[in-house]
Amino acid sequence: MLNVAIIGTGNLAQHLFDAFSACPTIDIVQVVGRNAKALGHFEEAAATSTDFKNIADAAIFIIAVSDTAIPAVSKHLSHKKGLVVHTSGSVSMNALSGHHRYGVFYPLQTFSKDREVAMDSVPFCLEAHDQKDLDLLKKLSAKLSEKVYEVDSEQRKVLHLAAVFVNNFTNHLYHIGKEICNEKGLAFEILQPLIQETVSKTEQLTPYDAQTGPARRGDLDTSEKHLEQLENSGHKEVYKVLSESIRKLYQDDTHYTN
Amino acid sequence: MLNVAIIGTGNLAQHLFDAFSACPTIDIVQVVGRNAKALGHFEEAAATSTDFKNIADAAIFIIAVSDTAIPAVSKHLSHKKGLVVHTSGSVSMNALSGHHRYGVFYPLQTFSKDREVAMDSVPFCLEAHDQKDLDLLKKLSAKLSEKVYEVDSEQRKVLHLAAVFVNNFTNHLYHIGKEICNEKGLAFEILQPLIQETVSKTEQLTPYDAQTGPARRGDLDTSEKHLEQLENSGHKEVYKVLSESIRKLYQDDTHYTN
Repeated sequence: MLNVAIIGTGNLAQHLFDAFSACPTIDIVQVVGRNAKALGHFEEAAATSTDFKNIADAAIFIIAVSDTAIPAVSKHLSHKKGLVVHTSGSVSMNALSGHHRYGVFYPLQTFSKDREVAMDSVPFCLEAHDQKDLDLLKKLSAKLSEKVYEVDSEQRKVLHLAAVFVNNFTNHLYHIGKEICNEKGLAFEILQPLIQETVSKTEQLTPYDAQTGPARRGDLDTSEKHLEQLENSGHKEVYKVLSESIRKLYQDDTHYTN
Repeated sequence: MLNVAIIGTGNLAQHLFDAFSACPTIDIVQVVGRNAKALGHFEEAAATSTDFKNIADAAIFIIAVSDTAIPAVSKHLSHKKGLVVHTSGSVSMNALSGHHRYGVFYPLQTFSKDREVAMDSVPFCLEAHDQKDLDLLKKLSAKLSEKVYEVDSEQRKVLHLAAVFVNNFTNHLYHIGKEICNEKGLAFEILQPLIQETVSKTEQLTPYDAQTGPARRGDLDTSEKHLEQLENSGHKEVYKVLSESIRKLYQDDTHYTN
């Protein structure tokens, strides 16, 4: 049995809690958070507390709070003998170096309220100051997911940055696509097979080879017409910058025939 | 039995040919193209010709060539009694108004060589000058796909533009994400569950609600650090413009807690 404590009550804390709860060999000894109302999600299935000065003992303390709150929250764990880990993509492991044992337990996924995530396909990116603690994190992760990676702080920052491009920014492009459709009475749903195929393609082709469209073809005429069509100046700016980035990438590519 | 002729030998022509060939109630009477070598893909299963002046008769002539080639190619069909359609997202139906019967047969999907597409989930966007011809196109489309839409030329242009955002541009962001990872020895594969979940989310949440990340939170500190991390000036530009677009969208949103 692995004893874990969760510090934090947000989206990630809730998703981890649900995954841990479903696992018979993990025991959640306590969930700690400032917000008594947010603790409501947890209190039926685990002990909860708003008192950071009396956190129960556990083998692993998982800090799942916003990046900026990590220093303040982790101070309350400085006397603990258990392994203290944070879950952030962009905070260095050394932010926890004041602890006896410390590491990082970073699930590379987007978590939203009211949306279940298949935890078994979430890549867990692990780091620990000590090899034994890394092994302990591997043991914990393997209970949840088939995808467990050893990733140091520098690499984790790179992944976090790449995630902004492939998740935050693509999601925003979906939003813009939806806006463009909705303004003319078209349902977003009609774009969904295209969105899905764009992703599925990457399993077989590199994004470089999968690229299609006017910018790749260097078809300035179509790009001009698209810019005229766009009414929102922010959308125009996005169109211009991404088209330019694609054109630059393929300008010396002479093999394209589509 | 529906008789169709395909004019063109590119990606789309090949994908349509394969889908038509698999359908027992569609007969491909001929495939016509300038390029004798490209006709090789078709000649085992259908009659082919490089002679645009002697195109065989068919119920429906499907022009699957580049936008700029449509006027020249369609001239060879001006005397035909069958229905002449093009397959372009951005060319108006009226580009074919010199024909007896004309319309548009636009599959809203991304087609690449060497990548099979599940045609039954491709949205076919149809338009015809005459109601009977629209019905004929519906009959043809229904043999291939479950998703058949009536879309006029203005709406089709809007879809084509939206498709550039959700397909061309997101694919390019995958490319950038891959570059960022590969430069630091990380495999792109680690991002794939995140990419898939970003798409799957849109089936349950609007992209507006699904948005996460530093730009949505107004977390300028993390955005600054990301910009410092990026080495490629083009990638920096993409990061800035998309972050700014997200920040603007959510600046008055006070409900966000993630």
